[in-house]
Amino acid sequence: MPTAIDNSKVRSVAEVLRRNEVQPDLCVRGWVRTLRRGKEVSFIAVNDGSCFAALQVVAATELLQVLPDGLGTGAAVAVRGNLVASPAAGQAWELQATAIELIGPTGEDYPLQKKRHSFEFLRSIAHLRPRTNSFGAVFRVRSRLAYAVHRFFQERGFLYVQTPIITASDCEGAGELFRVTTLDMEKPPKGERGVDYRRDFFGQQAGLTVSGQLEAELFATAFSNVYTFGPTFRAENSNTSRHAAEFWMIEPEIAFCDLAGNCDLAEDFMRAMVTAVLEECREDLDFFDQQIEKGLIAKLEALARAEFARMSYSEAVAELEKSGKTFEFPVRWGADLQSEHERFLTEEVVGGPLFVTDYPKQIKAFYMRMNDDDRTVAAMDLLVPRVGEIVGGSQREERLDRLDARMAELGMDAAPLWWYRDIRRWGSCPHAGFGLGFERLLMYVTGMENIRDVIPFPRTPGHAEF
Amino acid sequence: MPTAIDNSKVRSVAEVLRRNEVQPDLCVRGWVRTLRRGKEVSFIAVNDGSCFAALQVVAATELLQVLPDGLGTGAAVAVRGNLVASPAAGQAWELQATAIELIGPTGEDYPLQKKRHSFEFLRSIAHLRPRTNSFGAVFRVRSRLAYAVHRFFQERGFLYVQTPIITASDCEGAGELFRVTTLDMEKPPKGERGVDYRRDFFGQQAGLTVSGQLEAELFATAFSNVYTFGPTFRAENSNTSRHAAEFWMIEPEIAFCDLAGNCDLAEDFMRAMVTAVLEECREDLDFFDQQIEKGLIAKLEALARAEFARMSYSEAVAELEKSGKTFEFPVRWGADLQSEHERFLTEEVVGGPLFVTDYPKQIKAFYMRMNDDDRTVAAMDLLVPRVGEIVGGSQREERLDRLDARMAELGMDAAPLWWYRDIRRWGSCPHAGFGLGFERLLMYVTGMENIRDVIPFPRTPGHAEF
Repeated sequence: MPTAIDNSKVRSVAEVLRRNEVQPDLCVRGWVRTLRRGKEVSFIAVNDGSCFAALQVVAATELLQVLPDGLGTGAAVAVRGNLVASPAAGQAWELQATAIELIGPTGEDYPLQKKRHSFEFLRSIAHLRPRTNSFGAVFRVRSRLAYAVHRFFQERGFLYVQTPIITASDCEGAGELFRVTTLDMEKPPKGERGVDYRRDFFGQQAGLTVSGQLEAELFATAFSNVYTFGPTFRAENSNTSRHAAEFWMIEPEIAFCDLAGNCDLAEDFMRAMVTAVLEECREDLDFFDQQIEKGLIAKLEALARAEFARMSYSEAVAELEKSGKTFEFPVRWGADLQSEHERFLTEEVVGGPLFVTDYPKQIKAFYMRMNDDDRTVAAMDLLVPRVGEIVGGSQREERLDRLDARMAELGMDAAPLWWYRDIRRWGSCPHAGFGLGFERLLMYVTGMENIRDVIPFPRTPGHAEF
Repeated sequence: MPTAIDNSKVRSVAEVLRRNEVQPDLCVRGWVRTLRRGKEVSFIAVNDGSCFAALQVVAATELLQVLPDGLGTGAAVAVRGNLVASPAAGQAWELQATAIELIGPTGEDYPLQKKRHSFEFLRSIAHLRPRTNSFGAVFRVRSRLAYAVHRFFQERGFLYVQTPIITASDCEGAGELFRVTTLDMEKPPKGERGVDYRRDFFGQQAGLTVSGQLEAELFATAFSNVYTFGPTFRAENSNTSRHAAEFWMIEPEIAFCDLAGNCDLAEDFMRAMVTAVLEECREDLDFFDQQIEKGLIAKLEALARAEFARMSYSEAVAELEKSGKTFEFPVRWGADLQSEHERFLTEEVVGGPLFVTDYPKQIKAFYMRMNDDDRTVAAMDLLVPRVGEIVGGSQREERLDRLDARMAELGMDAAPLWWYRDIRRWGSCPHAGFGLGFERLLMYVTGMENIRDVIPFPRTPGHAEF
């Protein structure tokens, strides 16, 4: 192994390019994206993931000739040199190399050669795809956006509550629950009524959470404004581009708040998220705008300055009925809005983001607050053009008698939710919140069309690799 | 129900007290901590969770007399009034009420009356304990510290990677893995060799992750500097005050970094975390210092300005041997350091935080980088007074031949880790990282002694309530 080069004054590519000035004698480390060997001079594009751009390294070819084998696309290198204005088109700055070290060689079997690969193929090498332009950009945006989520809520005095992943309660439907167990699946202990879960780790059946909302409600009645941001799970055996078994949810919950205040928060939140990526991820967004969704930046800018319209479900149904348009799914008061209806409302009727509120009780969850008409509940969905629903929320039923009546009406057993009921017994207050799938938001701001392509290592039916 | 009071100019208690000046006509909403009814004047302490302090409300008793029943400890109220300097001892400011609304009544059966409750009892009402002084403080610190974790890494250009929760690989030991399944536990499908996991949701056996490190390593070879912060799981059937089945881990991973650089980062990180709570959670820390751990603040201030010592495992064993002290567990080169040894080293030998490095290979994981002596690996543990180990990390083995040899030596099957091996095949580079249990850090900065008391809804053997 040749002697390592002097590693002082190490800079990331992002730092080097951000300074936007001549910089003598610095060191950059990263991975070779492309290498062009010339007779006298060679060009190496080095990317370290700190930003979209690679740094153009210009080196006398003789510097490369003393290196061991394995310099090529994918190799890890350290380069020392001076940053100067680049005379060539394509970049403003280039690093004139004074020394190069080959840290980790590559080979001709490296799967990411220069040609384009399909996203489908890249999913099969999810351990390497972060080294591509597309996925480098996706995961940089994911990281910045996650931080923007925290910043938004923390700056508004919201408390971050990490709600449990393993749960013995089931908020919205047992059919979609993953079971968590330490029992021997080959020979589970049996009791009189089948498997004896009293001997399982938690002394009862347990599963993976589908939502942190109920626990967030508990915390909201102590801290007023709280939010969750954590993984949630659905054991839905559906192979669509919009469903994953494991995804991250953001769920704020606000005490002393009604449905209108809830919509206000969702509007502020969406505007802040879109503004954050526009301001902090511009280089990556330019790429998405050119390669993934034409007009993406204009779409985001439009959302950031849009009026958010509000319309009740009943008004929405009336709009759909009077439109004269033929839908695949018929429009009928009492039926859930389908994606085609949602997109028509947001794209054609209002031409911008739209809150639809006050849905029929029979299509919404038990915990939503009953309206005075006794037919609708204080629910809201935020619809945006090109996507349809992106946020769903409600004011919660804070009146214990009404909650109990609704649970009885639905044939639910109230006993396991004693703790949820308890917070309506002492110091109950109006409160509201919403949920937002983080990956849905990411798909919206990047233009990526498959949820598998915005999750580092996606989990879907048949897939838990890496 | 009486008419609601005017809810304009609503402020959180934290905002009101932070302004530290006379403020006319504002509205505060929260929960009654204490109520003293006098003949003419009554005193109500209102807490909304935004800060430790309750706001002292002074009201003409006749304002209370028109309210419905149920004003008392735990009730939800809105109060309008003017903030003025308080003539009484105990607080600088008080709100002279002009109107009070009882939003949610309480009753005499409310479990959190004024008297003190044991932490053990409060665990059984984890849905209400956030309304107490102790747990209000704990969860405010938890939230601020979580944000400080993100800020630390984001400001240094680290990429946040949300590594998978459900995994088919097992980093450090199958015995402690929770199984995740959608198979019918009563009648799982059987194949020739027992349960047929090909028919399970993921087409193979899956479980809950014990660490995001291996996946973080993959991302580090694309983005250079990354970190995880997410839930991890251990199905350890142990009922100690330091173990939970579900906890959050922080795991940075740094490319082009060796063990010394790894220690540097851990040192910066610990100093930043302690400084953040000292600066941002002072009111809560004052409470912990008085009620939970005397001298807590002095301990944290000492850590923030301490020199972090470094010592090899071999040197540490020599120190322990020459100490002449009798330990419960004998000291022997090759055996793991016990908590009593770790505390002696950090408390007695160096009197401050201490990195112990270069442990014998047989007591450390397969992925740690072999040192030239072929007996020790480039591992590090950070020990701090009163706790012992708080951070554990290592430089990773980046040389494929050495990694394969070590796995063979340990009888491990390399095939399932093809993706982990792959990143050593193309563009491999020295890299290092560490892991830190978020709850351990919280226990350290709050003085709380039971991990169940720093987790919103703790999961331990037999417990998955709420």
